[in-house]
Amino acid sequence: MVGSDLKEELIAYLKSISFNGKIAVISDSNVAGLYMGDFRRALTDAGLTVVTMEFPAGEESKTLKTYEIIIKFLLMNKMGRNDIVIALGGGVTGDLTGFAAATYMRGIRYIMIPTTLLSMVDSSVGGKTAVDMPEGKNLVGTFYQPIAVFEDISYLNTLDEKIFMQGMAEVIKTGILKGKDLLNLISDYLDERKSDTLEDIIFECVLTKGEYVSEDEFDKGKRKMLNLGHTIGHAVESCSRYTLSHGEAVAIGLNQITMISEGIEKMPHEEGNLIRNILSKTGLGLDIPDNISQDMLIDAISYDKKCDHDKIDIIVIRSIGDCSVKRVAIDDLKAYVR
Amino acid sequence: MVGSDLKEELIAYLKSISFNGKIAVISDSNVAGLYMGDFRRALTDAGLTVVTMEFPAGEESKTLKTYEIIIKFLLMNKMGRNDIVIALGGGVTGDLTGFAAATYMRGIRYIMIPTTLLSMVDSSVGGKTAVDMPEGKNLVGTFYQPIAVFEDISYLNTLDEKIFMQGMAEVIKTGILKGKDLLNLISDYLDERKSDTLEDIIFECVLTKGEYVSEDEFDKGKRKMLNLGHTIGHAVESCSRYTLSHGEAVAIGLNQITMISEGIEKMPHEEGNLIRNILSKTGLGLDIPDNISQDMLIDAISYDKKCDHDKIDIIVIRSIGDCSVKRVAIDDLKAYVR
Repeated sequence: MVGSDLKEELIAYLKSISFNGKIAVISDSNVAGLYMGDFRRALTDAGLTVVTMEFPAGEESKTLKTYEIIIKFLLMNKMGRNDIVIALGGGVTGDLTGFAAATYMRGIRYIMIPTTLLSMVDSSVGGKTAVDMPEGKNLVGTFYQPIAVFEDISYLNTLDEKIFMQGMAEVIKTGILKGKDLLNLISDYLDERKSDTLEDIIFECVLTKGEYVSEDEFDKGKRKMLNLGHTIGHAVESCSRYTLSHGEAVAIGLNQITMISEGIEKMPHEEGNLIRNILSKTGLGLDIPDNISQDMLIDAISYDKKCDHDKIDIIVIRSIGDCSVKRVAIDDLKAYVR
Repeated sequence: MVGSDLKEELIAYLKSISFNGKIAVISDSNVAGLYMGDFRRALTDAGLTVVTMEFPAGEESKTLKTYEIIIKFLLMNKMGRNDIVIALGGGVTGDLTGFAAATYMRGIRYIMIPTTLLSMVDSSVGGKTAVDMPEGKNLVGTFYQPIAVFEDISYLNTLDEKIFMQGMAEVIKTGILKGKDLLNLISDYLDERKSDTLEDIIFECVLTKGEYVSEDEFDKGKRKMLNLGHTIGHAVESCSRYTLSHGEAVAIGLNQITMISEGIEKMPHEEGNLIRNILSKTGLGLDIPDNISQDMLIDAISYDKKCDHDKIDIIVIRSIGDCSVKRVAIDDLKAYVR
């Protein structure tokens, strides 16, 4: 469900599934500070039994250690197989809580309530749960679908503009995959900032991701298209030692893949210009930072899970709304990632 | 696959799925000491790339800590999404390795090679993976099916007689569920100890469990029938503070549920006597130990996940081969669990 101020809808949903158990709400310290009090009160006022816990905000919390603490929290509160866990927060909260829900007593139901633009359009849809390991991000996890996702755009009112725009990078990616109508809507929103338009855009993004995921839940085929801009994006993110956020890195990756697609796939330059124009409206940097050399970047790409010897599958843009997987030699990328 | 000395069959299977990746074999210190050397050599001689690790034998190893070490072992050896993990050992090894395979990079393929009778007929079939928490057994885990199970009865040659007979308790349970043909075969085996008969019995047990699991993978209906003898069994096991093994507790639970079924369900006494006769051939104790009081037992039963207020669903025997779920008041059990 996509909308504004959805607490009543959540309560109605819980009634509609005849839920009369206990709810554990997991959140990070930022979101808990802003929203946990009201959220908890709305549920308890509706007669629901609620327990809450928060963990320190930040990617540093997305570990097996925090996971174990969440599991112990659920045990301590005697959560049973018919109870429900709610993840209230951004991507870290969703991934971590989802993994706990997926594995607590071999799986209990959970609901996602994403509070950032990035988690609304990306991690809250598709059932990928994960924690990081010191060896890398998202190395442990499962595929486990939430029973519902409530995308409440009123949470975006308190979101920092820069973090909001980082989420916009994934929105633009979805626009390139889906077609010019969505991309133009995104462009209009970035000019006019109307919240109705934003709601429409989020709804379209969720629908689009949902289509890819339903056809390929376990990420073996069509779902890979969602990696548009991510091969170079992930490499840039990793080379920056995560001083660049995922969204910032994806914006750079999209700019690069646009250039590569103009070169390799002969994507029309006017389409390339349209994409660059929309990307530039986010205010995010679009160039590979000077302190990341071509060698570092090519090296990082060759460590990618999708890399097979000296070739890699990347997603290229034939034209807006028409992308495809292409196996390219890593050497051929050197001409583009200067 | 059920048979004797199946290493060649394993290698043929890996060829049949065009496997050319890396294999990680996980085992405990007992099994590794007896079998890892030969097992590893057979695979490497066939041209396969193998890495191995062992953990200290015993239920004490079935923790998130050992799980994390297995994950780190897989990362260190750069296991990829197309590689395969093999669990070589008993129930602890299978549950733990299965959980690591289920969650490493959101799931890689694994093969079960159970080396105890109990794990052959029970935990290796059905895809339940788990680790224990200090709060209780199997509280964390997933449902995740192995791609193959090789039940090699030659591993049973080195199995301690007492531990073998503990597995026999689950075999007898399956016989009661399935019917008199299987139960008589088990009786014959216990008299004559012919290994061909044992192979047939294991095959029947695996088929039977497989039928229940295929109809109800996520344990919401029919699969619960496999809990025959387990409600009282689990309570006895827990009251003994796990000084009784799972198989020993199940033997006691089966003896108790036989008496209860004669009382509540009017199961014919000659059938009750047949079950008691077969149970007694295992040499396992069948009575609730004196140091476990009725109060302790009733208390433990009321903590069961299947308990709802003062009632509980137990599996009763109407006649051999015809069992069903019955909701009983816990108070009514007092007359039987003296």
